[in-house]
Amino acid sequence: MPFSHESEGFAVATPDIEAAATRLAGVAVRTPVLESPLLNRRLGFRLLIKAESLQLTGSFKFRGAYNAIAQLDATARQAGVIAYSSGNHAQGVAAAASLLAVPATIVMPSDAPQIKIDNTRAWGANVVLYDRASEDREAIGERIAGESGAALVRPYDEPQVIAGQGTIGLETVQQLKELGVTPAAVVVPCGGGGLSSGIALALSVHWPGIPVWTVEPADFDDTARSLAASRRVAVKTGGTSICDALLAPMPGRLTFPILKGLGVRGIAVTDESVRRAMSCAFRDFKLVVEPGGAVALAAALDGAFEAPQEPVLCVCSGGNVDPILFAEILRGRGTK
Amino acid sequence: MPFSHESEGFAVATPDIEAAATRLAGVAVRTPVLESPLLNRRLGFRLLIKAESLQLTGSFKFRGAYNAIAQLDATARQAGVIAYSSGNHAQGVAAAASLLAVPATIVMPSDAPQIKIDNTRAWGANVVLYDRASEDREAIGERIAGESGAALVRPYDEPQVIAGQGTIGLETVQQLKELGVTPAAVVVPCGGGGLSSGIALALSVHWPGIPVWTVEPADFDDTARSLAASRRVAVKTGGTSICDALLAPMPGRLTFPILKGLGVRGIAVTDESVRRAMSCAFRDFKLVVEPGGAVALAAALDGAFEAPQEPVLCVCSGGNVDPILFAEILRGRGTK
Repeated sequence: MPFSHESEGFAVATPDIEAAATRLAGVAVRTPVLESPLLNRRLGFRLLIKAESLQLTGSFKFRGAYNAIAQLDATARQAGVIAYSSGNHAQGVAAAASLLAVPATIVMPSDAPQIKIDNTRAWGANVVLYDRASEDREAIGERIAGESGAALVRPYDEPQVIAGQGTIGLETVQQLKELGVTPAAVVVPCGGGGLSSGIALALSVHWPGIPVWTVEPADFDDTARSLAASRRVAVKTGGTSICDALLAPMPGRLTFPILKGLGVRGIAVTDESVRRAMSCAFRDFKLVVEPGGAVALAAALDGAFEAPQEPVLCVCSGGNVDPILFAEILRGRGTK
Repeated sequence: MPFSHESEGFAVATPDIEAAATRLAGVAVRTPVLESPLLNRRLGFRLLIKAESLQLTGSFKFRGAYNAIAQLDATARQAGVIAYSSGNHAQGVAAAASLLAVPATIVMPSDAPQIKIDNTRAWGANVVLYDRASEDREAIGERIAGESGAALVRPYDEPQVIAGQGTIGLETVQQLKELGVTPAAVVVPCGGGGLSSGIALALSVHWPGIPVWTVEPADFDDTARSLAASRRVAVKTGGTSICDALLAPMPGRLTFPILKGLGVRGIAVTDESVRRAMSCAFRDFKLVVEPGGAVALAAALDGAFEAPQEPVLCVCSGGNVDPILFAEILRGRGTK
């Protein structure tokens, strides 16, 4: 009974996603679905890419942040929002807050890449730096929230954030119906599970039973392990990956029950596969995709799906990659 | 009287562009219009990008080729098509012919990049190589056309090719009207003028008098010089540019009267500006844009438009760039 979720008490209901889509209409980019007939021939099946790397701020995070902040009332908007993130969530919250004229404070590690700090500030956010070794970002966040009354925008364990990311699923359903396509499988990058749970929920209404896969970096496949074990398990830290956006050690408290309840399954890919996928995105789709954004494409190129009758849809979730790393990957360096 | 073109006997009429759009619907990618609010703030005006680099085959050339080949009758289709090109036109013709099940022969220089030869062959085209130093590609093309009866698809001086490229203009009008935007200026990369004349013609119906600019590489600014002189003049060859797609020495016989008749003006950019524009496309739009595809963006970043009240629209026309060159540009090498 994988689709009896309405009665399972998920933190998010499908009407929340539809409401989010209405809020985001005309604000978020309706990112295109792309394909490469030549790549399809090489793969032996039809691969469709949802190019969410073309979203405002270069990642899907803008959708969830905007959907959450847009629902604050006038008093809460005045008190502002706070988030802690070194990456895409920081820029997503800063941009959404800027567009909604809400003050934002972003707590970032002092060793975060300067470009990410600069971009977050360029959106008008107040950036508070902390020392990753000696300070606890959640404690700092809670202290600032306590003092200012600012609302905390969590990166994934927040119903309205999950609903916002789910609009990618809704949008893709519309786009694929225009193409006359029902995919054989949908493959989604996974960190804390906000993106994948939102998309899986949106798809479950229109295509009940459609296979959805989360993809994580090897050594950070907590979601795959948790789904296999039917309970949240953490991976031991200590591994490394170029997928800086996907290093969450455990699935979310709210996101995991959705993934589990909908029968989502998890797979993992190596950094080497991710590099190949980034080169493929460059060559075959003319897209800049960051490592964490390319894991789903990597899984498809790895042969996770063998010549299905219907197309496979991959979400490419972000494009915020350091130019020097991107250049190295194009030159084929650093690949084992 | 710049818009009395219906009576001026242009080779292409605006209904040809509308008919081309109908032929291309559901076949060509409806490429997105993108913007970066952070870049807008840095520039001091709103810049919109028509991301035609995301088109099938990685450039706008697919549109014109498909529109031309789709109009051949059954007998002509059986005899096939022929084109000579080392670059984007080759892939555009090969792909369009493949989708329409028409045999294609592409005459390419034997020193063309292997990836371009491979891609053209992957689309099923018969590739005929010639020696750039000792052989004349037009003579080879005409000989093959004479023997086989294949129809020659010219890269720009062909009414149905111009009409196909013009669909970018029509599509952009629709997209900008959805955004409630009338641009202050439209900026288009220019080689032989097929793209720019088609777009200028499409726009002239909906936004009469809108300023359209062609952009060329410095030393290959034959269109700018011709427009200034009100007659077709050739640039002397001998210069070099990384914009391999834009090295035509003289505007087209059919394209130039359209550009001139519509009051289009021309500007030129340096390779250094082009490199900066490619980095900007990577960083701010997450797009892979080839040198020739980035010249219009380069002109906008150079300050060709100073804080206009309405947005400036730039066409990014292609993304077929060698990964090693792209990596060098990201690393800031080779920039004077």
